[in-house]
Amino acid sequence: MSRLVVIYHSGYGHTKLQAEAVYRGAAGVDGIEAEILTTDEATARMDDLDDAKAIIFGCPTYMGNISAEMKRFLEATVKKWFSQSWKNKIAGAFTNSSSFSGDKLNTLIGLLITAMQHGMIFVGNGMFPSANNPDALNNINGPGPDEHNRVGSFIGPMAVSFQVAPPAAPPKGDIETAEAYGRRVAEVTLQFVRGRS
Amino acid sequence: MSRLVVIYHSGYGHTKLQAEAVYRGAAGVDGIEAEILTTDEATARMDDLDDAKAIIFGCPTYMGNISAEMKRFLEATVKKWFSQSWKNKIAGAFTNSSSFSGDKLNTLIGLLITAMQHGMIFVGNGMFPSANNPDALNNINGPGPDEHNRVGSFIGPMAVSFQVAPPAAPPKGDIETAEAYGRRVAEVTLQFVRGRS
Amino acid sequence: MSRLVVIYHSGYGHTKLQAEAVYRGAAGVDGIEAEILTTDEATARMDDLDDAKAIIFGCPTYMGNISAEMKRFLEATVKKWFSQSWKNKIAGAFTNSSSFSGDKLNTLIGLLITAMQHGMIFVGNGMFPSANNPDALNNINGPGPDEHNRVGSFIGPMAVSFQVAPPAAPPKGDIETAEAYGRRVAEVTLQFVRGRS
Amino acid sequence: MSRLVVIYHSGYGHTKLQAEAVYRGAAGVDGIEAEILTTDEATARMDDLDDAKAIIFGCPTYMGNISAEMKRFLEATVKKWFSQSWKNKIAGAFTNSSSFSGDKLNTLIGLLITAMQHGMIFVGNGMFPSANNPDALNNINGPGPDEHNRVGSFIGPMAVSFQVAPPAAPPKGDIETAEAYGRRVAEVTLQFVRGRS
Repeated sequence: MSRLVVIYHSGYGHTKLQAEAVYRGAAGVDGIEAEILTTDEATARMDDLDDAKAIIFGCPTYMGNISAEMKRFLEATVKKWFSQSWKNKIAGAFTNSSSFSGDKLNTLIGLLITAMQHGMIFVGNGMFPSANNPDALNNINGPGPDEHNRVGSFIGPMAVSFQVAPPAAPPKGDIETAEAYGRRVAEVTLQFVRGRS
Repeated sequence: MSRLVVIYHSGYGHTKLQAEAVYRGAAGVDGIEAEILTTDEATARMDDLDDAKAIIFGCPTYMGNISAEMKRFLEATVKKWFSQSWKNKIAGAFTNSSSFSGDKLNTLIGLLITAMQHGMIFVGNGMFPSANNPDALNNINGPGPDEHNRVGSFIGPMAVSFQVAPPAAPPKGDIETAEAYGRRVAEVTLQFVRGRS
Repeated sequence: MSRLVVIYHSGYGHTKLQAEAVYRGAAGVDGIEAEILTTDEATARMDDLDDAKAIIFGCPTYMGNISAEMKRFLEATVKKWFSQSWKNKIAGAFTNSSSFSGDKLNTLIGLLITAMQHGMIFVGNGMFPSANNPDALNNINGPGPDEHNRVGSFIGPMAVSFQVAPPAAPPKGDIETAEAYGRRVAEVTLQFVRGRS
Repeated sequence: MSRLVVIYHSGYGHTKLQAEAVYRGAAGVDGIEAEILTTDEATARMDDLDDAKAIIFGCPTYMGNISAEMKRFLEATVKKWFSQSWKNKIAGAFTNSSSFSGDKLNTLIGLLITAMQHGMIFVGNGMFPSANNPDALNNINGPGPDEHNRVGSFIGPMAVSFQVAPPAAPPKGDIETAEAYGRRVAEVTLQFVRGRS
């Protein structure tokens, strides 16, 4: 079994729903032992992450960037950075906010940059945006809340919670996008593990 | 009169509509002499930009970044970079693509970075996102095509053209957002010009 | 008198030296009342920032991004974001880390994005990089520690502290670059204040 | 044999030297069939890239971003984007400019974002920065031109050519860093290919 860990921070519960969807997607893949930890839990068990084959980082976008709680966790990984002991783990990222864009790309780039500093290998969303599906053409409203990769994100899933109290948000399409991402990262992880010579 | 120039590239006509809206917004401000140029026209008249007080750059987002045509123009400005002759001009940026996000933030950051290399002073969107207006709360579809700053963008306006043939796209809200941005950059420019001691 | 506030976080004292240099540069400009606050001090006096004409944000780059302490402060500004009460204030940014690059650009972009969310007007470094001065040509070592804008940064000053205990680092050139930046932001702020109609 | 293709643009020959070093590093790995193409050559042979297992993109940083020539190539890949036929290929990126920073990070992020739009899997530099090696401590000049990962870059190698005519620049350390990166991407590619179930 290959361990995959989802590490998330959630301020109001929306990102938690997204994180749980990523976890479910990964946990459903044969050969994967998935786990889900808050940033506080992960900080307390830092050495326990050493044998994880993949880590997926997720947090809300606050003021256009990674949440401070997630950033505090990322700074606590500096001891792993000095030893480069996370090198070649598989990495992924996701985020949620209250606007379609809301500068969420900046959060995903930030999570990715820390992963790159660790020498991790990054797996993005890998999902064609619903806005570009031929049957979505000419809908001036854009893709609705049931669509996959509704906003057109590529580094990782972006969910949009229009301030609707959870569990009503993120909507169905964003939750399914997060599940598909968990599966994708899990499958790439297994391929990579099998390839060890 | 203070000159403000909108320089844009448009591949299929959507960004042209957005650029014209930015231009209209600026041109309507007393004391502003607004102009609109394609990147080709601007390249041919580079020295003529020297006395502009403000330049607003706009292009589509292709493959998650500035269009090659816009980039070619930005590279042609290198002679102005060596002399830093655009220093302290006011700068702005806008972009359009076919998804809500579509990595458009990366295009705006790219346009801004070139402006910063020139020592320009950057004026962003300055418009609260409609997703965060209290009366938009709990609408799972998110803001519609008539809303201002529909996607939640801050460095500059982001328009979304769901592959609808122009002039149907970008939608009304995006066009009005672009007009408001033109006005905003024009007004900041005038304030800055008046402040010359 | 126009108030300009430098708000910084420093983990080990290097960024504090850079912040003090920015402050000195600003404080030396006639008509400017400069202040320097840690992120903790600024959080405790948030409403007191309302009448500042300019705010310059600075922090170390940790794991390729804004420090968690600075991010916590930026999140505390969300009440000012909802009221957009910082709109049209002048903004600036600076950072320090232990490598020439070290992904410091990502920190500056992050500070700038929060400023853009507030509707602030951004003033960058505005300083030609020493690597491109003709007399620096063909020096394979690159610019030395006494040079201005040694690393070639444009959004704001980047200092490099090669793990030398403060006050030996950042080096002379980085400190002088920070001072020049404080002066520059102060002068742009005054011009903008004078221009109020 | 697994095909790995280095695709680069070089304006003055410095980035070409870096690209050739990446190619040499990859070509020296058993089981890898490496190729090196300019962006023009690659555009003309787009379909021929379909069976490549890895593509590494490299270009100079001009005005703080991807060169227009590289961007033109990336836009020509849009037909592969619509079919997502590059999905799960391994990707990498490198860049060169005339300053230590020079906003090169923005170029690497840009190359990475296009790779993510294609659903590729990204392999970064994976090399500890020489500035953080204990024996580099307290050298106020910073790492010299023979050092590996001299500038502290993580998404991919950054070379610095202080306007020294090639073949004198990039310096030895940057060339060796590029070679090591070619080897690294090749080895990750082979592991990934072996893991196909």
